[in-house]
Amino acid sequence: MNTRTSDPLSVTFAALADPTRRAILDRLAGGEATVNELSDPFDMSVQAVSKHLKVLERAGLISRGRDAQFRPCRFEAEPLDTAVDWIERHRQVWEARFDRLERHLSDLRRSDRRPHQPPTNKEGPS
Amino acid sequence: MNTRTSDPLSVTFAALADPTRRAILDRLAGGEATVNELSDPFDMSVQAVSKHLKVLERAGLISRGRDAQFRPCRFEAEPLDTAVDWIERHRQVWEARFDRLERHLSDLRRSDRRPHQPPTNKEGPS
Repeated sequence: MNTRTSDPLSVTFAALADPTRRAILDRLAGGEATVNELSDPFDMSVQAVSKHLKVLERAGLISRGRDAQFRPCRFEAEPLDTAVDWIERHRQVWEARFDRLERHLSDLRRSDRRPHQPPTNKEGPS
Repeated sequence: MNTRTSDPLSVTFAALADPTRRAILDRLAGGEATVNELSDPFDMSVQAVSKHLKVLERAGLISRGRDAQFRPCRFEAEPLDTAVDWIERHRQVWEARFDRLERHLSDLRRSDRRPHQPPTNKEGPS
């Protein structure tokens, strides 16, 4: 297993970095399904779907029932909370920085206006 | 390049699936930096950092200045918006489903109570 992606957040993002796995989560967010039920609409072999399910299970994005024959898959939202937390924190830092930059630019604009104030109205239109 | 991860959302999630790349974004969310400025605190070679920057740039998570010598890196939040949108949509579907399930269970509990109402107090205490 790749040690570079062994921290939980990396495992979550890596699991989401595949359109088929996201489509499987799409399906499961609407309700539990077995491997067979998942492989039909995706036109994939049970083996191929199983491989994706293992990645999703390892990331904690799905859990599976104990029934040896069917083992229905169930969507689990918790790792998504952690992923959103990370993203939101960075958007906030970035937005705060952007606000500071904007304030700084408007300060610059104000101080820039002073030396260039229009001269007292000598030739203005009445 | 891996065709399975060529859609924009997969590219974004794959870029985020690495602790070093997330640490680089941490740093850049606080302000622009050059490759040299980034490689110092991470105790990594300029080459290794450059490789990560390429992945982040391909995902649109950073942009780089044109100055050939320094090319400062700048955090870009837009791909994160799309990533959060995807996640939030699934949390909502899941939560709606959970609410429905909860209503269904409380309905079951109510209808379950009817046939099992305690018999009129024949052997109760006191």
